[in-house]
This record gives sequence, C-alpha cells and structure tokens, in this order.
Amino acid sequence: MPKPVQVKRLNSQDIGFIETLLSSLSLPMADDEAIDAAVVKILTAVKAKGDAAVLEFTKQFDRLNVAKVSELEITRPELERAYNELSAVQKNALDVAAQRVRAYHEKQKIEAGCHSWEYEEADGTRLGQKVTPLDRVGIYVPGGKAAYPSSVLMNAIPAKVAGVAEVIMVVPTPDGSRNPLVLAAAYLAGVDRVFTIGGAQAVAALAYGTETIPSVDKIVGPGNAYVAAAKRRVFGTVGIDMIAGPSEILVLCDGSSNPDWVAMDLFSQAEHDEQAQSILLCPDAKFIEQVQDSINRLLPEMPRAKVIEASLTNRALFIQVQDMKQACEIANAIAAEHLEICTVDPRQWADQIRHAGAIFMGNYTSESLGDYCAGPNHVLPTARTARFSSPLGVYDFIKRSSMIEVSEAGAQTLGAIASTLAHGEGLQAHARAAEMRLKK
Amino acid sequence: MPKPVQVKRLNSQDIGFIETLLSSLSLPMADDEAIDAAVVKILTAVKAKGDAAVLEFTKQFDRLNVAKVSELEITRPELERAYNELSAVQKNALDVAAQRVRAYHEKQKIEAGCHSWEYEEADGTRLGQKVTPLDRVGIYVPGGKAAYPSSVLMNAIPAKVAGVAEVIMVVPTPDGSRNPLVLAAAYLAGVDRVFTIGGAQAVAALAYGTETIPSVDKIVGPGNAYVAAAKRRVFGTVGIDMIAGPSEILVLCDGSSNPDWVAMDLFSQAEHDEQAQSILLCPDAKFIEQVQDSINRLLPEMPRAKVIEASLTNRALFIQVQDMKQACEIANAIAAEHLEICTVDPRQWADQIRHAGAIFMGNYTSESLGDYCAGPNHVLPTARTARFSSPLGVYDFIKRSSMIEVSEAGAQTLGAIASTLAHGEGLQAHARAAEMRLKK
Repeated sequence: MPKPVQVKRLNSQDIGFIETLLSSLSLPMADDEAIDAAVVKILTAVKAKGDAAVLEFTKQFDRLNVAKVSELEITRPELERAYNELSAVQKNALDVAAQRVRAYHEKQKIEAGCHSWEYEEADGTRLGQKVTPLDRVGIYVPGGKAAYPSSVLMNAIPAKVAGVAEVIMVVPTPDGSRNPLVLAAAYLAGVDRVFTIGGAQAVAALAYGTETIPSVDKIVGPGNAYVAAAKRRVFGTVGIDMIAGPSEILVLCDGSSNPDWVAMDLFSQAEHDEQAQSILLCPDAKFIEQVQDSINRLLPEMPRAKVIEASLTNRALFIQVQDMKQACEIANAIAAEHLEICTVDPRQWADQIRHAGAIFMGNYTSESLGDYCAGPNHVLPTARTARFSSPLGVYDFIKRSSMIEVSEAGAQTLGAIASTLAHGEGLQAHARAAEMRLKK
Repeated sequence: MPKPVQVKRLNSQDIGFIETLLSSLSLPMADDEAIDAAVVKILTAVKAKGDAAVLEFTKQFDRLNVAKVSELEITRPELERAYNELSAVQKNALDVAAQRVRAYHEKQKIEAGCHSWEYEEADGTRLGQKVTPLDRVGIYVPGGKAAYPSSVLMNAIPAKVAGVAEVIMVVPTPDGSRNPLVLAAAYLAGVDRVFTIGGAQAVAALAYGTETIPSVDKIVGPGNAYVAAAKRRVFGTVGIDMIAGPSEILVLCDGSSNPDWVAMDLFSQAEHDEQAQSILLCPDAKFIEQVQDSINRLLPEMPRAKVIEASLTNRALFIQVQDMKQACEIANAIAAEHLEICTVDPRQWADQIRHAGAIFMGNYTSESLGDYCAGPNHVLPTARTARFSSPLGVYDFIKRSSMIEVSEAGAQTLGAIASTLAHGEGLQAHARAAEMRLKK
C-alpha cells in the first residue's frame, strides 16, 4: 500500500511566487552527449549501408534476426487480420474513436484553411496560394511498454485526411512481440505500409530511404531519447513534428467540482510517467484540501500507484490563487499541454486563456475523453511550447506554394517599385530583371 | 571584364540523370563544430549574465562601446525620422511595397484559416479550435553587406497582420553604421522596438530575455552561420522559422520566352551569393543556347558580375528535357524555392507542380517583382524543403488550442469508449476518470 502523498503547495501571494512556479515547471534538459554520439553513428551507418545497417541494428537492439528488410514488413492483410481478431467491444471502441477523430479532422481541414485560394487585381495580376498534401509521411510508434493504439490513430488519421498518398509506420517489436491493438489501429487509420523497426535506425531509414524502405518527407510521432535525438538530427532533410516533453495537466477549479473527479484527472496525467506534471489552481483552500484527501483515498486502488505517487511527489503543485481571474493569468504563464476548466460557466474563463494545447471545459470533459475519442488530436505542445505551437493537425501534413501571375500592365507599375527597392539594396540584376519588362 | 561563363549542361536522357541532378542540388552541410561551440558559450553567458553579456559581446563583435543596453535601442521617433528623410521615390516604393504585402497577408489571414471555429454535436458536445496570435515575436535582421529593408517588411508585416502584440527587431550595426532604409522599413511595418545587437548574443537575448530586452515566443529572420546555430540551439525554448540555405531559382521554358529576360532572372538569383543556384529546364536545345549567349553578352554590364560568375560556374545547370510534362516532373523532384514558368499558358504546367516555394507564372512575372512588391512573402523554403514546408505567413504567427466541451450525455457514450481503450493501453486512471462521469 502506497504511503500518503503530500502535494507541494504554493500560494500566489508568496514572495517570489512566479519565479518559484516557473522553476517548478522546467526540467533539466536531457542534453545527453553520449546519446547524440550514438545516434550520429547509427544515422551515418544507415545512410551509407541502407538495408544492411537496418538489419544489423534491429538484430542488435530488438533481437530480431532476419535475412531481409522485407521480412520486417507487416502487410495490409496481416493488419486487417489483427483488426478482425479483436473482441467486439474493442473493435467497436476503436471504430468509434477512429470515426470521431476523422470527423473532427475533416472539419479542421475545411476550417483551418487547408485549401488553395487566389484573387485577381484590377490590372489582371493574380495572386494566391496553392495547398498540396505531402507526398509521403513516416509515423514513429513506440513499442514495448508504451505502445499506444490511440497514438496511431492520432498521427495517421490527420495525414490521411490531408491527402497524404503514402503513410509509412515504423514500430519496434523487441523479441518479435507485436501489439495487436496497434496493428488494428494502423489498419483502421489507413496506414499504407508498416515496418517493425525502431530507434534511430528507423528514423534514419525514413529520412534517407534504403533499398526496401522509401524515404519520406516528414516524420511524426513520439519516441525515446534516441528517437528524439535522431529526429533533431534529420530535421531539414525531412520535416519533423515537435519534440515532446513529459505530459502535463493543469486543472482550474472554482471549488464547485467533485474532488474525486479532479483527483482522478490528476492521476490520469501522473500515471503516464514519473516526470509527468499535474497542477491544480484554485481560490478555495478547503477544496484543495478535499482534493488532497481524495488523492490519498483513491491512490491505493490504482494499479499504477507507484508511478502516480512518484509523479505527484516530484512534480505536482496545488496553487491557491486569489480568484479565477488570477487563475487564468497564471494558466497563461504555464501554457499547459492540457488545461481543464472545472467550474460553473467554464466559457467565461476559457475566453481569458491565450496559451494551452487543449482546453477541456466543464466537469464532464475529463482529459481522458479527449485522449481517446472526443475527436481533437491528443498530440499537443508540451513544456510551455503552447505559447507558439499547436496540436498536431491536418495543417501539419499540407504545405503551401505562393502563386504569382503578374499581368503585362501589372509589370509596369510593380517594375518601377521593384527597381527602386532593388537598387536600394545594391542588387542590380534584380532591378534589371524588372526594368526589362517595362515598355520602352 | 569577366571571362565567358559556361553553364554545366545535363540531359534528362543521360544515364544516371536523376542521381547526378540530386547530387548537384545538395551542398555539404556546414556542420561546423567550432561555430557551435562558440555559440553555446555565448548563449550560456547571456542566459546567466543578461545585459552585461550582451554589452560585452556587442563591444567585442560590433565594436560598439556603450554603458547600458538601453543605449542600443532605437526609438520609434528615430525610426520615423529615418522614414521621413527618405527621397520621395524611395518613400513611395517602400509605401507601395508595404501596402501590397499587407493586403496579400490580410487575404491570407482569412483564406488560410487563421480564425477560431467550433461545432456542436447532437448531444450538446462542442468541439473546435481557438486561434490566438503569439504574444511577442523577435525578428533578426542581418546588418552589414546584406541589410535588406524588404526582409524587414516580409518578416514584420505577417506578424502584425496576425495580431502579434509586440514585434521586437534586432539588427547589428557594426561600428555604429545604421542603414536608414532598414530603419524606415521597420517604421512602416509597425515594429515596436529595435535593438542594435546581432549574432548569437541577439538570439540569446530574445530567447531568454535580459533586464532590458524582453524574451519573445518565436524568432524569425535570416542570419549567418552563428545566428543559424543559435536558433537551432534555442528551438524549444522559443519557436523558430526554417533555417535558410542559399537561394535557388528554377526556370521552366518552352522556348517561347525572351532569352535575355531568362538570363537576367538567373542572374538575379546568382547575384545573391556564390552558393546560390540557378537552373533552367527546357526541351528546346536552341533556346538553351540562346540563354547561354545572353548570359555572356549581359554579364559584363552587371556590377555584381564576379558573384554572378562564381555562382553560375559553381552551381548553375541547364537541363534539356524531353517535353514540358517531363520538365514538371523534374521540377517536383527539385522542389525549388523559386519556380518560374516562362511558357505559353503557364497555368497548365503550374497545375502539375506539387513542390515549390513560390510559382511565378508567365513571362512578365520576374522573380524580382515577387521579391519586393507583388505581395506574397519572399521568405521561402530552400534546399528541397518545399516538399514539406511553406512560405513564411500569417499562419506562422498564430497558434491553435483545441476546444472540447463534452455534455453530460456525451460523457456517457464517450466514457464507455474511452474506458475500453484506456484499459487496452494499461492506463487505468484514464479509464477511471471516464467511468466516474458515467451515471450509475
């Protein structure tokens, strides 16, 4: 039985409160030079030797000994079989989740401007932007203890909704153990090809291509420190998504919620890993005490109590604030990955939030509903990056090209302007190119 | 007088053509460990010592010896004076350019989905996404020989159109020499504060903040190898734009254009720097010969002939193709920063282009018009990254938060699904959080 957890308390009126808060948010950067050096070796080997290097590293790290990379591919019929062999309950849950995630991202494709546009000016000049899906995308799916079918849906479905022609998934299967739910999710999400490879060697294969594994244009999906270091290194050769930090939840309460629900929502973040962070902001000292009591009452029931206990002890915070308005200001400073607003009329507070990955409004919106099946993406910016970045979305799988068609009349007016500015910058060929289009 | 340039020729029917082409596109990565080590030192010093370190490095690198960082700030009235002191012709050119860039990006803000949206489901559950501009953005503007007022407009205007509250520009002024056009452009674009600092120390000041310089949420704008290395290092603490490589132009001709115009457009890329790349794709061998002749006839007139000659000799390519359809396929493989389609009916070929930063259609659309005043952004993806990234735009200065409000009824249906999936992933607190919201 776990011993009682005492969550660290802060009060917004403490001297130096904001400094204490911000320093509690940051983790020392895992800037491991040894990991980086190992990754460089793997990337270089795969780039130079292709399939042979992939086979070697897969034998070394995952203890899979095969003669050809093609033996590491799982075919669509095999994925379909994994799906068909699920229980009716699991199949239905996965179906509904996939369908809701797809519906949300289809709305997003329309609303978030993933379409081409153009306008014409009076002199016939036409300007606009053309939207094109990426040709080929790689999805990294972790194997072993953190193999999450929901992540397969969340990464692959937006790519397919965007119109990506080929989605290639890599998933390590140490000692050959495959997760049927992950394969079923890949089938449902429309993943085109699956290779059972992982680590930096999988990132390298996707970035550079090998004889068997085609190179992709962008790599998304979470992974361990080696995968993260490899993604950083191949950035530029291919696109990458954000490098994810430990998961975080911030709960704003006005004291009107069920403290057990709040405690369980904090647990559901804390159970991810010992570095995960759960924070409660509340003006009501009595309610904070109730949540603390709920934690100690509910913790012994939890199968992952040890992880939860470590996470809450190391990283959780209960912050007593002056009022809900101040809670919103502090929430903007924290810029949390997940923000729950468990209050009466949550919209009034949501309106004051500028920085958060996802905002869960009202007592019925537990973060776990969003994690699995509400529809929005569960890949969200961590570590205060919600100040400048967004949930994974359809917009991550398209890109834009500017479209410019200057008419003969337009070239006359624009040419004079461009010539003046180009001479001002000392770029005379730019000026001449514009001047040549002027009528004598 | 420069000696005649002979541009390297390729033919799409050559054996190993695609390999030769792709290897001609790539430059050895400037992965300079010495630069990176120097940058780490500067970043660490500025993070630890703030203003004092900024003053020290600015004295060391730019020979500016001042007592306080506030002396390095250029106030809005000083910017306005620089603008007012321009010649009428320059003032008008800058006005028109700023106005056209603003108009284009205002259309983009609407069309590219930079707005919040939401929808409601039958059971009252509401889902959507909230769009918020970034709070504060830093713009790096190079000083010295490559000080471009047009780049100030192209970086600052989309940020302001997005609604960024505070745009902070940094620009080194070695030995105190200020470029009045750059300051005037900052005034016109609505830049809020300007500091005359540069290099890795400016990136560090913007990323971490100092006593005088506020920290920003994202840093954009081009710079030298030190600036690029610093941006890579602070990525995650702040957002960054793409790391730009040498500029490139790809011209598709069917043989119907004026060869002098094409030659000058190739020059206007080549004059940027010796690593810039200019490529011509054309099915007509005679036209290629005419462009080669134009080059040698026009080159002696160019003030920047030495740079152009070096760039064309080192990196230019004339590629003879089978037909325009094949030219488009090759253009997709190249994924150029700038693509000119100088043909009859350029739209039919533009439709076949999937990968390019900007597409310039028709003989009157010289790239230089787009560089300065057509309206679209001139910050474009280089080095084949147009396969997965976009021109700088309003969308780079906003970010999204998912909005989720599950109704009590919605929590019943979604809760059952989430519970099944969470148990499948071994995350029991996630399951319990959903189950607690189910009615008994």
